[in-house]
Amino acid sequence: MTTAISIFDTTLRDGTQGEGISLSADDKLKIALKLDELGVHYIEGGNPGSNNKDIEFFERVKGMKFNAKITAFGSTRRKNSVAEQDASLLRIVESGVPAATLVGKSWDFHVHTALQTTLEENLAMIFDSIAFLKRNGIEAIFDAEHFFDGYKHNPEYALTVLQKAREAGADWIVLCDTNGGTLPGEIHDIVRRVNNEIKANIGIHTHNDCELAVANSLAAIQAGARQVQGTINGYGERCGNANLCSIIPNLELKLDYSTIGVDKLQQLTGTARYISEIANANMPVGQPYVGNAAFAHKGGIHVSAILKDSKTYEHIRPELVGNKQRVLVSELAGQSNVISKAQELGLDINANNNKTREIIDRIKELEHQGYQFEGADASMELLLREAFGEMEEIFQVESFKILVEKTNADMVSEAIVKIRLGDETVYTAAEGNGPVNALDNALRKSLIQFFPKINDIHLSDYKVRVIDEQGATAAKVRVLIESTDFDNTWSTVGVSSNVIEASWEALVDSFRYAILNMSKVESNASENVREQLGLVNH
Amino acid sequence: MTTAISIFDTTLRDGTQGEGISLSADDKLKIALKLDELGVHYIEGGNPGSNNKDIEFFERVKGMKFNAKITAFGSTRRKNSVAEQDASLLRIVESGVPAATLVGKSWDFHVHTALQTTLEENLAMIFDSIAFLKRNGIEAIFDAEHFFDGYKHNPEYALTVLQKAREAGADWIVLCDTNGGTLPGEIHDIVRRVNNEIKANIGIHTHNDCELAVANSLAAIQAGARQVQGTINGYGERCGNANLCSIIPNLELKLDYSTIGVDKLQQLTGTARYISEIANANMPVGQPYVGNAAFAHKGGIHVSAILKDSKTYEHIRPELVGNKQRVLVSELAGQSNVISKAQELGLDINANNNKTREIIDRIKELEHQGYQFEGADASMELLLREAFGEMEEIFQVESFKILVEKTNADMVSEAIVKIRLGDETVYTAAEGNGPVNALDNALRKSLIQFFPKINDIHLSDYKVRVIDEQGATAAKVRVLIESTDFDNTWSTVGVSSNVIEASWEALVDSFRYAILNMSKVESNASENVREQLGLVNH
Repeated sequence: MTTAISIFDTTLRDGTQGEGISLSADDKLKIALKLDELGVHYIEGGNPGSNNKDIEFFERVKGMKFNAKITAFGSTRRKNSVAEQDASLLRIVESGVPAATLVGKSWDFHVHTALQTTLEENLAMIFDSIAFLKRNGIEAIFDAEHFFDGYKHNPEYALTVLQKAREAGADWIVLCDTNGGTLPGEIHDIVRRVNNEIKANIGIHTHNDCELAVANSLAAIQAGARQVQGTINGYGERCGNANLCSIIPNLELKLDYSTIGVDKLQQLTGTARYISEIANANMPVGQPYVGNAAFAHKGGIHVSAILKDSKTYEHIRPELVGNKQRVLVSELAGQSNVISKAQELGLDINANNNKTREIIDRIKELEHQGYQFEGADASMELLLREAFGEMEEIFQVESFKILVEKTNADMVSEAIVKIRLGDETVYTAAEGNGPVNALDNALRKSLIQFFPKINDIHLSDYKVRVIDEQGATAAKVRVLIESTDFDNTWSTVGVSSNVIEASWEALVDSFRYAILNMSKVESNASENVREQLGLVNH
Repeated sequence: MTTAISIFDTTLRDGTQGEGISLSADDKLKIALKLDELGVHYIEGGNPGSNNKDIEFFERVKGMKFNAKITAFGSTRRKNSVAEQDASLLRIVESGVPAATLVGKSWDFHVHTALQTTLEENLAMIFDSIAFLKRNGIEAIFDAEHFFDGYKHNPEYALTVLQKAREAGADWIVLCDTNGGTLPGEIHDIVRRVNNEIKANIGIHTHNDCELAVANSLAAIQAGARQVQGTINGYGERCGNANLCSIIPNLELKLDYSTIGVDKLQQLTGTARYISEIANANMPVGQPYVGNAAFAHKGGIHVSAILKDSKTYEHIRPELVGNKQRVLVSELAGQSNVISKAQELGLDINANNNKTREIIDRIKELEHQGYQFEGADASMELLLREAFGEMEEIFQVESFKILVEKTNADMVSEAIVKIRLGDETVYTAAEGNGPVNALDNALRKSLIQFFPKINDIHLSDYKVRVIDEQGATAAKVRVLIESTDFDNTWSTVGVSSNVIEASWEALVDSFRYAILNMSKVESNASENVREQLGLVNH
């Protein structure tokens, strides 16, 4: 029988302490929903007592349904004060969460140096704060900060701290290796001793300063911990928190524990990549389990062995974590995705075997150039419909021109767009906040006379990512645009070494997709044009 | 008394199997010299039987002096042949190396599936090949490929393989976790058993597929292994090899082993960054010990504690590995971050209490607008130096203009820049791959006549992030630019609703920072301009 381990995700709280990680309330909400789908048990959303973004996040999740427990984070009450009047603790209660984590000191050195109070007052701070949460019906998770360092310096005090939290009613006692300096052997021994001394549910929270956060988490679990705290992709302060993307499959596939279950495990790679997109943080290509190169084979001997039996150079089947094998010499991946996508669109791929082969080659070529269709469903659909001859070209771009000028504090951006619809040529110009906005405005202006519904569309997201970082400002960029018309949301992609051209490509795809999907074209276009475009209902 | 562990670096061989890692013979030579300075004991240069680059490398190192043993890599002889006639083994002998690694199969499944020969022939291949090296006076290191998987499936055969290598005279028997799927506990137990059974010097070679390569290496050493094989920055196939940049300090500072010695350890960060430059591979910002964020502090509570005693949130003193503490300025932090940053720059904040308050308010205001200084040290430094009146304005931007035009497949981007240095006005125009690249080229062109060293600078990263996504193409964007002049790397930030303006801001800051830090201005500027700029040494 497998033992259940509770997965506590702190991507939205401790993860945002990582350099370069900054999430809006909107980003946080998207990530929380994705984590909930993955099946983690706790989602720590932030500190409702610290900043407006976190307050907004907790406000917005209030009315929503999650399987995971949305958790707030805070510290024990201030020294020489009362929990009932502690602004930060009150905010936690107000946020309406079912569970909260309170961090408290368990290293005597920190009590003296950082808190600058007495060991007794620290114990009272912990007891009062946990008890306050419990009185308010909130599940209380106590994060014993610097527990391992504290235990090594003053085991008696460190254990007393845990005891106090337990007496106050803490549901979980989480042992933190806050500075990330402890080794797996030490972690194992100390957790085992704690487990013998304290009657409580024990958790583990580690950092990666010695590149041992995953090993330390496993060591703690093997010594009896039943909750593991970590972040997606190991985001976090300094060298990061323990990486749940490695811990979860290690526990599920390599050891006798259950976490999110093997079915959900297949969402792991998708989740990791989605969150890295939202956080705008590149994933290391060789990230274990979920990285793009995690199952990529380069060496000739390896490749020929892999072709005989993939077990020869793969420790698990990549599909178990939703990843895939890549053979760098003969790319075989992707085919099944393309086929299933075409089927989804009702395209008859069996009747078009040559066409299917052709379109797969085309997509591979585009991916090689830096396109990514995972986040650009609409561009993918346009590509497939084109390949199967199921799409009329609605408009052609003849040319565009952009002028950006700065003098003193004034900044002007203008775009001139020339497109052709049927046999009409439309020439428009528009201003914008910036060059891409000017292009968006000009293109919209030229299309709206034919397709008034374009008025309802707005672009809801715009992302730029440098693909080949070495080239810096001369590098290729990938632009992802998300558009919405209230009912639907779709994403398109463009790639170029010119950010304007890449944006233009994604922009044009977005409008093409929108027009394609307008169920009824309430058109002001001349009958002539409409007929040529095949838009007339006969 | 500490136990000595032999450090075997395979960055130049196994490291080059990593996706995106490709080294010329020249690159390899530079890296070998750097590794020798660091004090590793073996430098595996490549496979002299495999390609011209490696042959050239071994040719060129022949006449050079190294403290480390330059090591060649190869496989055991082909099946059903003779070692003396094996082209690959002969090449190793010809390369004149003092030591060589031979990889051989120790998992019966691989003997059958990949080699497609008998278990007996595999033993003969190993014995013959090792004996051949020894007869030629070469130190023989036997890499038992897939040893742990082999041992788990057929311990008897796996041990027989080791025994055979030992009988043939192997100086080291290295146990490889080739697929990276083994856990620390298993590694520990198996190495201990091997150590009891085989009278030999045992080594360990691990891969990072479970994010456990470092832990596995330590576990093997604690069970009796005395050599560790790995790569700088963990380069290698799939998820990479064991990272020596983490293993070495863990052994030296955390456990009772000696490797390169604590003095040389201070070269670790410099070595890691140098090799990442040569390999043209970005280092993860949070890489343990040697990463740019390994000792970077963002949380306000952390920063205020660090100021009291850095031990509160640092597991070692960063200087021990040649790294340094950094305080990141961000919305999560408060006053203490800014103060410590100013102190780091030698600015007298105590004498300027009002100014400190002012500058903190200014930074908060900028962060509210969307600036983010935690990833833009150089912009932060410029801001602080300006606020404290410690900076002359080097050049002023009068205006710039950009034209982007697309007709058919042609795309043209031009920039016109007008700046003022002292009383000289410089007007330049340049083309580029895109508008930002054109601006970069134009600005560089106008500055280079005054500051020729600008030639050495290149932009190493360019990131764009939409801050307020609701606005989409009219939204604000934040541009982060990373620049490098080989010795140093710095980052700058720009924010605007116009991606061109934001890029321009970050670009201008990057050049301002570079000029500020040019210790000696080898200037072609007229004396007049130089005097006005305060660049003349009086």
